[in-house]
Amino acid sequence: MIILQVKLNYFCKKNLYMVKDDTICAISTPPGTGAIAVIRLSGKDAVKICDNVFFSAKKGKKLKAQKANTIHFGTLIDKNTVIDEVLVSIFKAPNSYTGEDVIEVSCHGAIYIQQKILQLFINNGARLAKPGEFTLRAFLNWKLDLSQAEAVADLIASTSEASHKLAIQQMRGGFSDELKILRKKLLNFISLIELELDFSEENVEFADKPELKKLVISIDNLIKRLISSFDLGNVIKNGVPVVIIGKPNVGKSTLLNVLLNEDKAIISEIPGTTRDAIEDNITIEGISFRFIDTAGLRDTTDKIETLGVEKTFQKIYQASIVLLLVDAQDSIEITNKAISKVKTRITDTSAKLIVVVNKIDKLNKKQLDVKFKNFNKDNIVFISAKKLINIEHLTDCLLKTLNLSSLNKNDVIVTNVRHYEALVKSSEAVSRVLDGLKNNISGDFLSTDIREVLHYLGEITGEITTDEILGNIFEKFCIGK
Amino acid sequence: MIILQVKLNYFCKKNLYMVKDDTICAISTPPGTGAIAVIRLSGKDAVKICDNVFFSAKKGKKLKAQKANTIHFGTLIDKNTVIDEVLVSIFKAPNSYTGEDVIEVSCHGAIYIQQKILQLFINNGARLAKPGEFTLRAFLNWKLDLSQAEAVADLIASTSEASHKLAIQQMRGGFSDELKILRKKLLNFISLIELELDFSEENVEFADKPELKKLVISIDNLIKRLISSFDLGNVIKNGVPVVIIGKPNVGKSTLLNVLLNEDKAIISEIPGTTRDAIEDNITIEGISFRFIDTAGLRDTTDKIETLGVEKTFQKIYQASIVLLLVDAQDSIEITNKAISKVKTRITDTSAKLIVVVNKIDKLNKKQLDVKFKNFNKDNIVFISAKKLINIEHLTDCLLKTLNLSSLNKNDVIVTNVRHYEALVKSSEAVSRVLDGLKNNISGDFLSTDIREVLHYLGEITGEITTDEILGNIFEKFCIGK
Repeated sequence: MIILQVKLNYFCKKNLYMVKDDTICAISTPPGTGAIAVIRLSGKDAVKICDNVFFSAKKGKKLKAQKANTIHFGTLIDKNTVIDEVLVSIFKAPNSYTGEDVIEVSCHGAIYIQQKILQLFINNGARLAKPGEFTLRAFLNWKLDLSQAEAVADLIASTSEASHKLAIQQMRGGFSDELKILRKKLLNFISLIELELDFSEENVEFADKPELKKLVISIDNLIKRLISSFDLGNVIKNGVPVVIIGKPNVGKSTLLNVLLNEDKAIISEIPGTTRDAIEDNITIEGISFRFIDTAGLRDTTDKIETLGVEKTFQKIYQASIVLLLVDAQDSIEITNKAISKVKTRITDTSAKLIVVVNKIDKLNKKQLDVKFKNFNKDNIVFISAKKLINIEHLTDCLLKTLNLSSLNKNDVIVTNVRHYEALVKSSEAVSRVLDGLKNNISGDFLSTDIREVLHYLGEITGEITTDEILGNIFEKFCIGK
Repeated sequence: MIILQVKLNYFCKKNLYMVKDDTICAISTPPGTGAIAVIRLSGKDAVKICDNVFFSAKKGKKLKAQKANTIHFGTLIDKNTVIDEVLVSIFKAPNSYTGEDVIEVSCHGAIYIQQKILQLFINNGARLAKPGEFTLRAFLNWKLDLSQAEAVADLIASTSEASHKLAIQQMRGGFSDELKILRKKLLNFISLIELELDFSEENVEFADKPELKKLVISIDNLIKRLISSFDLGNVIKNGVPVVIIGKPNVGKSTLLNVLLNEDKAIISEIPGTTRDAIEDNITIEGISFRFIDTAGLRDTTDKIETLGVEKTFQKIYQASIVLLLVDAQDSIEITNKAISKVKTRITDTSAKLIVVVNKIDKLNKKQLDVKFKNFNKDNIVFISAKKLINIEHLTDCLLKTLNLSSLNKNDVIVTNVRHYEALVKSSEAVSRVLDGLKNNISGDFLSTDIREVLHYLGEITGEITTDEILGNIFEKFCIGK
């Protein structure tokens, strides 16, 4: 029965998503002009199609006679026109990215040449690949599971140290390896339970219930651990949402500019990423912080004293961290009032508050000490945005607030909403299984709940999948991957 | 003496341009995010530097032990952080693009990853390559001559079939092969002539003067052929400059829009090339036509009748082709006057005139025949830009006017201003050599003129070069090539 299911899955995969056994091609390097570009072919005719138009300096040398993982210099010729001098890399099924025969042509990086070569391959029988189709084939040929395939897209989109780390961890197996082992064990149990049902009149018991319970508990633990990691994983992938609030002229925009200048991420020096700057993304030690609608927050009409500007507080619901900026010169009563009002607002949210006392250069140390003597210094940062005092302390505080310990422990972290949703559904079914085991319910009810757990866990790794899921995942890829 | 000169050139090349024997690296694919990107290392430590950070799935596998032209899958690791799973291609000196050991790393195309890998190589002893430095090294290691190196840049910049064809022809040897053979023969002669000078008191003659004359004449022929090809070569490389003139409301902008719509060049569908659209570049059968400052020409204040708008006529001096647009409804006197005034203007230029009679839909065939019965139909095109009548005839006429026969014969064509200037100087010196031979001048004068020919021909292929020439050429390259 297990074997049958695997085979069924295989057929489902192959047929539902309407994958043809044709040969696909695409430009795989970034769009535009460069020193070189790479055009990729994958499919059973990849080598043949390239051989039709490739002429080695060694006369009569054919690519199909060459070993896998070798590189060959030669000329691509369309009828009598030389298109380019190229290097051709050969990969053979199943030892390639897609699991099929793959050809990679490295040509001169003129857009004209890239297009000409693509045309040449299409004229010789290849088809232009759809977005993510190379990775889809890798998935269909069991080179990657679905969550690993998704991580490939995340990896290409990663712009910070942390998002890169999570994506590469997931691409290299991540939590899906562990999940697959547990799921396989569970699959074993269900076949025994269902066997019991077949022999129900004889009242035999094949499945070791205490063992099953142990297994389900370990699945429950893993799933709960993964679910709880999602908050962190999600903010790391998309940037930690931060809101700065404070009364007019307290120095919100000055602070934001100072933080932006502190952003030494190498990324921002590269053409094509400057767009992000208008979103006020700041990378601090590899973590991307996203300042929500700060343009609006720079607006001096929001008044914390009166709480009149409701929309500012609406932002808090999107935030992981709220920076409340107060003026060191204000009376302690005003400051306390502001803090308590913000605290009231965030009690229902998962946002964490950092109180930032700005303009400390206007007071001397003694004045400060006296004024804030009753404050817990762990929850408050004293800075001067204008004089660049203690900014590093603030950024440290931002990092600490995130509680990154799990990230540093190389622990598995869920970053994908699809995985999170499947995990939540699995968790519910797991609870029912545990209840069932406790209450000793009949095998057929137990079987139904276990099947549900199997289903949702299978969705994550792609052992269970549908056209819709695959479509949603791969349409977000770039062409050529 | 010949051997000495070659060696001296070699040392000049190596030392003057201050090339170090260090290992350089750069991102070679277009800037931005893509499915994959390629980072290139070249130099004696290329393999070692990559080996420092590359870990194969096969434990203990080292790149330095691998064969040339092979590809290896593995992981790049910076201390304990996995940067990416990559494919590494190995090329070994002298059989690589640069003639040095070369490593190409194919990684996931996130900008973050590309930068990280570059940083990793730099931290391990590589240096960021300067623009064109890989190709410069290829030149210094005798993989390419200078005109071939220049063709690499032209090839990457090529945007039309014709400019691509010329660049690839030149990169694959083009006229420089022929030039080098003739130059070598001439070098042989001069050493004999200079030997005669050493033995001048004995009045011996080592050089076969009639043979020398034959050689110089064949050099003269080649140079003249190349010089005369430059007009065409230059316009093909940069686009054929075309000016449309005509009185207001004759349909200039309608015609331009129609031609733009006829432009089926695949290039314009690719992101990053739309910028060109504002320059009104139109590709017709692989030839790029560049409409000069047509925004100005669309201005309805230029009045052909009065010749009052001098600036429109100034444009003619930049044009290879002038399209004079006249209105079919105008009297034949007005039309003749316009034609003769434009003809007067272009007599001093190399521009060619095409008279385009527009709005022929406003007259019937008989009226047209009567009105233009005295015109030579070879030099005139009848169209209606608005009704799209005969537009194809006009584009045929544009192509015919260029006289592309030499392009189709696979003839060598000069596209580079630097080459053109060196050829003109060579030609002058060649004339003096021929005069000298005719007048039987003394060996030392002859030697001086021949040396000058050798010098200028050597400049083209890079056998003679200076820091300044190399600097000018390679600074225009992109980084990574």
